[in-house]
Amino acid sequence: MISEFSLIQHYFEQITTKRDDVLLGIGDDCALLDCPTDHLLAVSIDTLVADIHFFADVDPQTLGHKSLAVGLSDLAAMGATPAWFTLALTLPNIDEDWLQGFSQGLAKLAQHYNIQLVGGDTTRGPLSISIQVHGHVPTHLALQRSHANIGDIIYVSGTLGDAGAALQMQLKQWHDDRLNDEDTQYLQQRLECPTPQLELGEKLRGIASAAIDISDGLAADLGHILNKSNVGARLDLNQLPLSPALAKIDLQTAQQFALYSGDDYELCFTVPPQHCAQMQTDFKQCTRIGEIVKKIKGSASLIFGTKSQTEIKLADPLILGSGYDHFK
Amino acid sequence: MISEFSLIQHYFEQITTKRDDVLLGIGDDCALLDCPTDHLLAVSIDTLVADIHFFADVDPQTLGHKSLAVGLSDLAAMGATPAWFTLALTLPNIDEDWLQGFSQGLAKLAQHYNIQLVGGDTTRGPLSISIQVHGHVPTHLALQRSHANIGDIIYVSGTLGDAGAALQMQLKQWHDDRLNDEDTQYLQQRLECPTPQLELGEKLRGIASAAIDISDGLAADLGHILNKSNVGARLDLNQLPLSPALAKIDLQTAQQFALYSGDDYELCFTVPPQHCAQMQTDFKQCTRIGEIVKKIKGSASLIFGTKSQTEIKLADPLILGSGYDHFK
Repeated sequence: MISEFSLIQHYFEQITTKRDDVLLGIGDDCALLDCPTDHLLAVSIDTLVADIHFFADVDPQTLGHKSLAVGLSDLAAMGATPAWFTLALTLPNIDEDWLQGFSQGLAKLAQHYNIQLVGGDTTRGPLSISIQVHGHVPTHLALQRSHANIGDIIYVSGTLGDAGAALQMQLKQWHDDRLNDEDTQYLQQRLECPTPQLELGEKLRGIASAAIDISDGLAADLGHILNKSNVGARLDLNQLPLSPALAKIDLQTAQQFALYSGDDYELCFTVPPQHCAQMQTDFKQCTRIGEIVKKIKGSASLIFGTKSQTEIKLADPLILGSGYDHFK
Repeated sequence: MISEFSLIQHYFEQITTKRDDVLLGIGDDCALLDCPTDHLLAVSIDTLVADIHFFADVDPQTLGHKSLAVGLSDLAAMGATPAWFTLALTLPNIDEDWLQGFSQGLAKLAQHYNIQLVGGDTTRGPLSISIQVHGHVPTHLALQRSHANIGDIIYVSGTLGDAGAALQMQLKQWHDDRLNDEDTQYLQQRLECPTPQLELGEKLRGIASAAIDISDGLAADLGHILNKSNVGARLDLNQLPLSPALAKIDLQTAQQFALYSGDDYELCFTVPPQHCAQMQTDFKQCTRIGEIVKKIKGSASLIFGTKSQTEIKLADPLILGSGYDHFK
């Protein structure tokens, strides 16, 4: 039986690119890291638990990718550049094939974004993965949830609802005959191998007023921006960007997925009007979906409908159109 | 039922002291932190799993203390000053009494060492706690495992073996009639409420050549220093510092606890001879237990016995006198 110490070293010590700002990596009581001046350190920790966040029998390489991707997505939402990560891995037993796959999935993504594994803890117990990511963002340029202003335009990157549709299919709770095998595989890939929007996050520094990554669903995550910024939003549902696969199904179902299902890891962000011309030329993968409006006292912060349509007012989206909440 | 979002806010957002270097704490995609110049960032992540590291029914306040203390002990071993921590908490259900106690235990220790909770993730699953600590250490003054030199003197802080004896009593695998209730309580306290040696770690900057905290047992942890520094050590067993409680039991058993049981969270460190005079005056809570010697090829790195005694040579302490290894 391989020991804990050699386990960590064997599978994880060698996997990532070596960065010059890591003075001491895995193998001491702490890692020692050199932070650049004139930057802030951005950190975020996320846990994925078997049978809650993923099926225990999911392909380990895919799981390795996703475990790191969700943290990288948080860095993207702040406009931060990835630097280091730590891994707390709890395993029921040592399955070397699983470890091989998991560490490869992790390593491939880590190398792509030049983020180095600098520390970890491996322990025995029910399968669970906590990853903390660390990135740098120039002081004063971090994208925060609380800085959206009335009149700002709301954008999202990519397409929405794909991961949620794939999850419902996996759970056999939803199916649509119009989707062929290729569509299904595409949606599956969106659920299992999300792409963190890091390049976009960096480009939005100085342009976006607020940003968040869509992990719990657009309604819930945009709701966080609205709550923190104390503003409302008017969304044009017909503008929600749908993938070719989701465009095949009935529009209302697709919009439900786009609004209320999580795991897309796209960015939702707000842009002051003076920067919107630039959006059309430099950010072609982003779609304008609405605008920030004054919050109406005692009413919903999120309003659906264009100005020409009858407004459909909803209660607080955190209650009505809620995103995923582990304890509800 | 309280939701995940309000759960985190209610119990954890308010608990710690507010630090000026936290530009953004809990409540966005990332925390934003300001690192001091001319310092390195020291980080360490540790996971405690129910029924592996602690009994699931342990007093939650004590558990909150210990969860943070083990991380702080890693900072102490690097000579780092605590700054921030993150918490990934996995809970089978929401027990508000438990959360109240756990967060209070955590908060009390956090306030004492001026370390602020800056982020977290709360999820449902088998009870498990991952904490990452972040500290600062002046560049070039960090204490590392790899810098012990032949001729350096080996010291430990406090007393050894107390936590291990308490654990064996809790597991009902060992008992000694010479211990009264007060002794038992003292040992229990040492197991459940370890004190991280942060003040000592900071004072050892520029004095100690290498350091480690004793989490897996002196033999195993000193073994890490020896392996990393490529040296051997000669220990005088009679110098191992024992508490008044452990001094009551037979010497050999006490020495076994001191050598091979973990969870003491004292520091073991090496000091070049020129600094040893200072040790006697300024570090009265530390005990000289041996010295760093040349590693004998093909032989043990750890030798017991004084120069006047016959040397008892052991195999690699990681194999023979092994510390706790979760996967063995």
